[in-house]
Amino acid sequence: MKRLIAGFDIGGTKISVSLGTESGKILGKKIFPSARGRQVKESVRQLKSALSALLEESGFGRRHLLGIGVAVPGAVDPRREGVLKSPNLPSWEGFPLKRVLFKEFQVPVWIENDANAAALGEQYFGSGRGIDHFLYLTISTGIGSGIVANDSLLRGASGLAGEVGHMTVVQNGLLCPCGKRGCLEAYSSGTAIANYVRTALRNGAKSRFFRNIKLSEITGRLVSEAARTSKDPLAIQARRTAADFLGIGLANLINIFNPQRIILGGGVMEHVEYFWTPMMKAVRREAWPLSLRACTVVRSPLGTEVGDLGAIAIVLDQMRP
Amino acid sequence: MKRLIAGFDIGGTKISVSLGTESGKILGKKIFPSARGRQVKESVRQLKSALSALLEESGFGRRHLLGIGVAVPGAVDPRREGVLKSPNLPSWEGFPLKRVLFKEFQVPVWIENDANAAALGEQYFGSGRGIDHFLYLTISTGIGSGIVANDSLLRGASGLAGEVGHMTVVQNGLLCPCGKRGCLEAYSSGTAIANYVRTALRNGAKSRFFRNIKLSEITGRLVSEAARTSKDPLAIQARRTAADFLGIGLANLINIFNPQRIILGGGVMEHVEYFWTPMMKAVRREAWPLSLRACTVVRSPLGTEVGDLGAIAIVLDQMRP
Repeated sequence: MKRLIAGFDIGGTKISVSLGTESGKILGKKIFPSARGRQVKESVRQLKSALSALLEESGFGRRHLLGIGVAVPGAVDPRREGVLKSPNLPSWEGFPLKRVLFKEFQVPVWIENDANAAALGEQYFGSGRGIDHFLYLTISTGIGSGIVANDSLLRGASGLAGEVGHMTVVQNGLLCPCGKRGCLEAYSSGTAIANYVRTALRNGAKSRFFRNIKLSEITGRLVSEAARTSKDPLAIQARRTAADFLGIGLANLINIFNPQRIILGGGVMEHVEYFWTPMMKAVRREAWPLSLRACTVVRSPLGTEVGDLGAIAIVLDQMRP
Repeated sequence: MKRLIAGFDIGGTKISVSLGTESGKILGKKIFPSARGRQVKESVRQLKSALSALLEESGFGRRHLLGIGVAVPGAVDPRREGVLKSPNLPSWEGFPLKRVLFKEFQVPVWIENDANAAALGEQYFGSGRGIDHFLYLTISTGIGSGIVANDSLLRGASGLAGEVGHMTVVQNGLLCPCGKRGCLEAYSSGTAIANYVRTALRNGAKSRFFRNIKLSEITGRLVSEAARTSKDPLAIQARRTAADFLGIGLANLINIFNPQRIILGGGVMEHVEYFWTPMMKAVRREAWPLSLRACTVVRSPLGTEVGDLGAIAIVLDQMRP
């Protein structure tokens, strides 16, 4: 009998529901918005109807469903029954997600932080296959990570392990959205890259590319475009600065974990011009040569599918013998 | 039948050979120097005769010996047959330690990095008992660590995991003995503390305590004494600076690992005046509140025995079911 797995990838702006096989083939997928402030109950209703529709469209019925993996953008409560803390989806906090989904579909439901889920996605379907020690990092609006050591996901005492984005890289440095100062995320995320450009423009720097763009409209993606298409010096400098700090962060992780691989995903990694080279230069400068020799740094081969595959991999990880 | 374990704690200046029980009772112990440059063969001869003597003195014979654990100050080769790299004991590099000891005693021999061994010592006999996620850090001449995650020692791809002392805490910062810049070790070790005082004195700072002391004679231990006994402002400032950076390092590890405990040992931790309070202040400033709540930071209860107990624990760890 065909065994299917459902993956719910809950994001701050959109929710993706996918139905896949154990080998990571996505049979169908539905996407809908999860706008801030929207109530959790409405989203859960949509989750249910999306999965029901996918099961029907697949030609298989509910009895083929093995389990549901739910990736959430925030901290999962220690019993893994719901979301403990999510700045992007506050209405989800405390909602009995596992119980409600189990009641509807009568299959095991597992909830996992989204960066951890992405690491599992890499472990089962991507660059983490056959590797005992690796880290997955997403470099996007923020910086998150999932860590696999000794072939196991590292969740820590209360499921919060992997907050590498809040490693302090500068004592009393730039303010991070988390409230503390000097975090890697405040230096190397897409948001940080946009902030570098904004600050420079505010301080009177000139740029042909940005002169007709409102400061509030500058994003990491736009800076990437400015660097690639116009070789805008401001954009290039912003990306190089972010890349150097990310290299320091990666080297720290290489020295701490001695991993075989670091896998990089997220929006900032979509285009690596003026980023990869300075990042790797910093990695080589800061990592221990013996540990560096054991490690390769790669881009995620899963790209935008990492969210769906990660959610599906949550189930595989829980069901492995 | 009484089952005994031998622990060889190989240090840069001295070697300790101990004979203990499975429950961590040390029955006997011999210490001899391991001066730099001394040839490995002479040390191994001394190891052998020390253990033979201990077995005889204990009243038990060789047949009671279960295994030998060897803790070494450096990188262990991936097959764990000897020392790959040790700046303090270069003559040991490449020596077939495991084979030679096995030939002599005909029991299993396991070699482990000393900070990893200390973490195992804590896991079996100290503050790591019954804890699945913890880090042991030694703050001494240098800074090393052993990491236990998911109830297992984290060795990484080539046995080099745990180099938290070489986490970069300042971009392009102070030069570290390892050759790179800005390492935690260059800011928070005993050596770093002595360097802060030396640099201040060189720059004309006045100190009643240090005025008759040669710059080359200043050590972390002496600075600790100056702070405790004379409330020397220079010494207090040096310790506070080091403590703040160590707090940043510990917070980074709390954010990355979400551990239940961080256990601190090493010379700098012998006296915690003008150190613990600023260190914990930095930890609270830099760690995520939810992760911090799950973690307690403690001093090692094993004190100076951590080396011997760590070497013994290597054997217990390998023999566990």
